[in-house]
Amino acid sequence: MSILVVGSVAFDSIETSSGAVENCLGGAATHFALAASYFTDVRVIAVVGKDFTEEHEAVFTRRGIDTRGLERADGLSFHWSGSYVKNLNEAQTLETDLNVFQNFDPKIPESYKDSDYLFLANIDPVLQARVRQQMTNVRMVCGDTMNYWISAHAANLAKVLRELDVLLINDGEVRMLAEDQNLVHAASKVLEMGPKTLVVKHGEYGATAFFGKDSFSSGFRALHPFRAPALPLAEVVDPTGAGDSFAGGFYGYLASQPELTPTVFRTAMFYGGVMGSFAVERFGTERLQDVSREEIDERFCLFKEISHLEYERS
Amino acid sequence: MSILVVGSVAFDSIETSSGAVENCLGGAATHFALAASYFTDVRVIAVVGKDFTEEHEAVFTRRGIDTRGLERADGLSFHWSGSYVKNLNEAQTLETDLNVFQNFDPKIPESYKDSDYLFLANIDPVLQARVRQQMTNVRMVCGDTMNYWISAHAANLAKVLRELDVLLINDGEVRMLAEDQNLVHAASKVLEMGPKTLVVKHGEYGATAFFGKDSFSSGFRALHPFRAPALPLAEVVDPTGAGDSFAGGFYGYLASQPELTPTVFRTAMFYGGVMGSFAVERFGTERLQDVSREEIDERFCLFKEISHLEYERS
Repeated sequence: MSILVVGSVAFDSIETSSGAVENCLGGAATHFALAASYFTDVRVIAVVGKDFTEEHEAVFTRRGIDTRGLERADGLSFHWSGSYVKNLNEAQTLETDLNVFQNFDPKIPESYKDSDYLFLANIDPVLQARVRQQMTNVRMVCGDTMNYWISAHAANLAKVLRELDVLLINDGEVRMLAEDQNLVHAASKVLEMGPKTLVVKHGEYGATAFFGKDSFSSGFRALHPFRAPALPLAEVVDPTGAGDSFAGGFYGYLASQPELTPTVFRTAMFYGGVMGSFAVERFGTERLQDVSREEIDERFCLFKEISHLEYERS
Repeated sequence: MSILVVGSVAFDSIETSSGAVENCLGGAATHFALAASYFTDVRVIAVVGKDFTEEHEAVFTRRGIDTRGLERADGLSFHWSGSYVKNLNEAQTLETDLNVFQNFDPKIPESYKDSDYLFLANIDPVLQARVRQQMTNVRMVCGDTMNYWISAHAANLAKVLRELDVLLINDGEVRMLAEDQNLVHAASKVLEMGPKTLVVKHGEYGATAFFGKDSFSSGFRALHPFRAPALPLAEVVDPTGAGDSFAGGFYGYLASQPELTPTVFRTAMFYGGVMGSFAVERFGTERLQDVSREEIDERFCLFKEISHLEYERS
């Protein structure tokens, strides 16, 4: 089934201990869409500037991603520059130029209206809400956010949270949103804000899902949390987009399945980790553009092998 | 099979956001021995002072732990006081009084000489080495250490590391020992220092095992790391001894099994997490004294449920 994603398509300048790149294709919607495209149909809504060329668009279309919702505006595309030289786990933002994103008003093409799954990537909650309101017939809504919206746009974010089936954020964001340092307490508080399910990303330690009492419709009595591993990696070239790639793998797999069972949900968490682990192997979207489904499933087996009691492969 | 543990038996004064206790029974060997006692026979070598009463000894003997190696010395027992009020994940040491531990020279009772498994808890590596030298017929040696020995007693520690089958330390200690921030690189470097296997404890995120090329003798081709979860806990009353309890559950289970297979090793990692999760539920050794084997196995199932793709329990 098809996923509609709204979020940023951007150019990133990134510096890590492995090197530096200038103006490589990035943005939350980009990483998400590429990761999800290995599992299901994906449609993108975003705004780009005159610097976004046919070559850039081909990165999407080569993966079968529908770009009819990519709006061209006068000016330059959103640009972010950051450094991971001091700390590989947390980007130090050097510069953010919203550019054409400043006046973005997401419009949903008619051909997108029958999308089954909606993903609200990390953008202004006002825009997230506007897209959500236009997509009332989706089967599931999943969303992301970040510390900036949590601290400075709490009221707008609160409205979005009430509409979410799944909120997908990281450790620090959960604790910040709940104002509680204990992850279990913080998760309970966040679930009370609206999301039926909360997926917390722990970076190199994997991810944990917490289920509210209304999590999914039937047969889903998973009141216990679920923990998915991350692959211990010897080389992390560029962590940018790892979280969005996790989201793409997770949601892409969910959308590809006819029914949402506990095992399907857990498998989706594993595929999230798998796509995140590929994303960081090279700069920008380089690795997500050319990974094969065979490599993805091979790594999925590896994730199972490193976390399951029974020894799977000989 | 029997485990011989050498380490501290102490009195702790602890303050956490849940409250405070004065002079409760503690020490690495104590937590380790209690946790391991649910799986196999345990023998303790340590020194205590005149303040260690029959009542304290009964905490060990009630769990069937052999205390013939508990030496009584003039003076007071080792005393530690610490606070977790500011940070539940890391103790702030307020005071350390070595007392009778200052002149401790471990003596191994004749009746301990046939022990099959040796655990060198976190004490001066000189003492660890001395015990190791006297126990040449053991099937396996597992050891712990801490930042103080890593930074100030590196040469002595290096000798111990060369003798270890399993080194069991936490994240920060691995990175410090290897002088490398990347966990995978750090683990490789530590494995080159001698331990055949490295188990890294991540606190609330679980634990990861890294296997060297000489890990275990046969049929153990597990070159991939293995990740065991931790249970997300709503209440952590007192984290003191969680790592030692992990070690006790891990090593106790290993020692209880006739053969060391990959699944046995992985199961041991899970039991480590299980015992750690009980340890923190109450102050000191309170919870480890009275947990039942049924509760332990019930929680083991829960660990499996929160980490395995297939939904186990209805």
